[in-house]
Amino acid sequence: MTRVSGGVTAPRGFLASGIASGIKRGKPDLSLIYSEHRSAAAGTLTTNRLAAAPILLARSTLKRGYAQAIVANSGNANCCTGRRGMQDAKAIRQSAADLLNLKPSEVLVASTGVIGRYLPLRKILKGLPRLKGRLNRNGWKSAAQAILTTDLQMKSVAVRIKVGGRFVSIGGMAKGSGMIDPAMATMLCFLTTDAAVAPAAVRLALQQAVRYSFNAISVDGQMSTNDMTLLLANGCAGNRPLRPGTSGWWSFTQALNEVTLELAKRIVIDGEGAEHFVTISVTGAATEAEAFRAAKAIANAPLVKTMTAGCDPNWGRVAATVGALGIPVKPSQLTIALSGVTVFHHGAPAFFNRLELKERFRGPELLIDIALGRGRASARVYTCDLTEEYVRINTKYS
Amino acid sequence: MTRVSGGVTAPRGFLASGIASGIKRGKPDLSLIYSEHRSAAAGTLTTNRLAAAPILLARSTLKRGYAQAIVANSGNANCCTGRRGMQDAKAIRQSAADLLNLKPSEVLVASTGVIGRYLPLRKILKGLPRLKGRLNRNGWKSAAQAILTTDLQMKSVAVRIKVGGRFVSIGGMAKGSGMIDPAMATMLCFLTTDAAVAPAAVRLALQQAVRYSFNAISVDGQMSTNDMTLLLANGCAGNRPLRPGTSGWWSFTQALNEVTLELAKRIVIDGEGAEHFVTISVTGAATEAEAFRAAKAIANAPLVKTMTAGCDPNWGRVAATVGALGIPVKPSQLTIALSGVTVFHHGAPAFFNRLELKERFRGPELLIDIALGRGRASARVYTCDLTEEYVRINTKYS
Repeated sequence: MTRVSGGVTAPRGFLASGIASGIKRGKPDLSLIYSEHRSAAAGTLTTNRLAAAPILLARSTLKRGYAQAIVANSGNANCCTGRRGMQDAKAIRQSAADLLNLKPSEVLVASTGVIGRYLPLRKILKGLPRLKGRLNRNGWKSAAQAILTTDLQMKSVAVRIKVGGRFVSIGGMAKGSGMIDPAMATMLCFLTTDAAVAPAAVRLALQQAVRYSFNAISVDGQMSTNDMTLLLANGCAGNRPLRPGTSGWWSFTQALNEVTLELAKRIVIDGEGAEHFVTISVTGAATEAEAFRAAKAIANAPLVKTMTAGCDPNWGRVAATVGALGIPVKPSQLTIALSGVTVFHHGAPAFFNRLELKERFRGPELLIDIALGRGRASARVYTCDLTEEYVRINTKYS
Repeated sequence: MTRVSGGVTAPRGFLASGIASGIKRGKPDLSLIYSEHRSAAAGTLTTNRLAAAPILLARSTLKRGYAQAIVANSGNANCCTGRRGMQDAKAIRQSAADLLNLKPSEVLVASTGVIGRYLPLRKILKGLPRLKGRLNRNGWKSAAQAILTTDLQMKSVAVRIKVGGRFVSIGGMAKGSGMIDPAMATMLCFLTTDAAVAPAAVRLALQQAVRYSFNAISVDGQMSTNDMTLLLANGCAGNRPLRPGTSGWWSFTQALNEVTLELAKRIVIDGEGAEHFVTISVTGAATEAEAFRAAKAIANAPLVKTMTAGCDPNWGRVAATVGALGIPVKPSQLTIALSGVTVFHHGAPAFFNRLELKERFRGPELLIDIALGRGRASARVYTCDLTEEYVRINTKYS
């Protein structure tokens, strides 16, 4: 597997562009990804009951398994906007389809930003022809920039692998900085590949990749109404279609996992106000679901988050959170370690050197390991700390 | 019902004291409440699986239904301290029993503070005789002060009612400012009454009172390992023993509810870094449990908490949190109101005056009302906002 530049336009047959349409006062806010060829498409969408209009629209599109374009705007989530919100999303889809000579059912629409306000539809419709005009093979940067909201950094990755003697690329771009706790879905993330993959297999590969990447991160425990990951596979690499069992399936899914995990981690690193990247590793759980639930709860505990912000190895907060999970943990079988130093073992504080602990529990990456002593299942969740800056950003957001 | 002064020593037959024993470097940290007469006793304790040593000890004491003294220390939670922690708690209990001429099983011990450190036992044992020597009828203030940790304000309440021609008083003191999300229990709260109440009835009255007060508050969604509410009833008022069905039971439980709700609200108002007191009211739920769960989740959502910190009526965050609850809410039946202004109704933004909304959604008390449209059950939860000060306090705690 090789890292390559080019983001979502690294795979052959993909063009992209991004412009400022006026939703965000001069800042890039409208993005387009276009495949020159018919593409198998899969997506994972938020499970939030108040899912935004573009999510509802994507549900039906993704059932067909094919799509050729993604239009995404930032600055407005088009969520909690009722019938008018749905009409707006459909109008954007129709207009983009006309411009690109596609059927509306081949265009996916995505939105992110403030909830509960109607889209400035005219501005967006007026921007679409310009957006189409700028489509090009190097448009990955402008496209990735136009979907950001409170993000400080653009998030774009691409890799190349060899599948059945052919070079295959996978590219991706993502946004997300706050309201990050995807469940069965993710923040906005668009993935492209020139591999030929059967539609059902695209879905399978994406679900697996999302499970251990976007579904394993949290910034603030807040599931968004607009989470959406999409994967388009246009087959331009000319390989024999991939599906489980074919040679190349393993390399392809590994490469896809690498791309999604990298983008997921970048979302956490760029989490609102984040200063530390924290890996929560839970082992010895009865089931993987239990391990995930425990790791997520610890990741989202404000007292654990503030403790990592201060690099303060106050492990009692981790213990208190584990005890509150509703999992019948026995203190005598529980072990807690911070950045490699065991602090709690067999129901009592472990013998450790407090200075060494302080020395190790610092720096940009922190580790919290919990061994529940109940079984053999494990999970890993990536999160960031809770800083005054997070509060500052979110006290003055709307 | 009349408010009276005197806190936990307002009821007849109760003495109290508080001293600085050296756990917290010169600050008050050791507290004693003593009944001159045998008292029926009930308690609600944390359900945290890593419950502290004093909690484990209290479980057996409370089974007997009688107790006459409570010794509480702040500055150290005596939690996650294994066998030695239990020995320490027992040593304090034994020493206090000797000094007060009681059996160890008549003394309750409580601790609050940092988790995972051993108690400075010698200091505490050395302080006990002094603590006993200072016991007096006006000791309620020093006792209430010595259990505080990050609290800025002392929390003490007392009321008087008439029961069967006799005056009966109920007094209480509480602490709690962070790690507040009691479940089936509370932070430290000690209640006294001179009413004669049957032991089983003491338990019942306390459970009811805790349910809608301490179990209905949250500062940061973090259940403590040391939550404990205790009620001692020594019968000095000379009334006929109260139990469900007797005349006076209703007035007594109402008065007890008032005391616990008042103390619970004061914990929220004094929440770490809190600037706003927020009432979350959920109606139209299928069951009371569902209403409570929804209200708690909204109370603990960081984006709702930061929104109340900024008095920013960004109601989409409330909607997103409701949608993420896992409750099958239909957007078309959901209504959201902020401080009396309906902002979301029948699946779309309501028509409201944005200036009026901003005007109303400010000040020290904010209201968030959610009507789920699923049934007739409701619940109310009290919480505070999430401010930069909360993060500052908890980044540098241990």
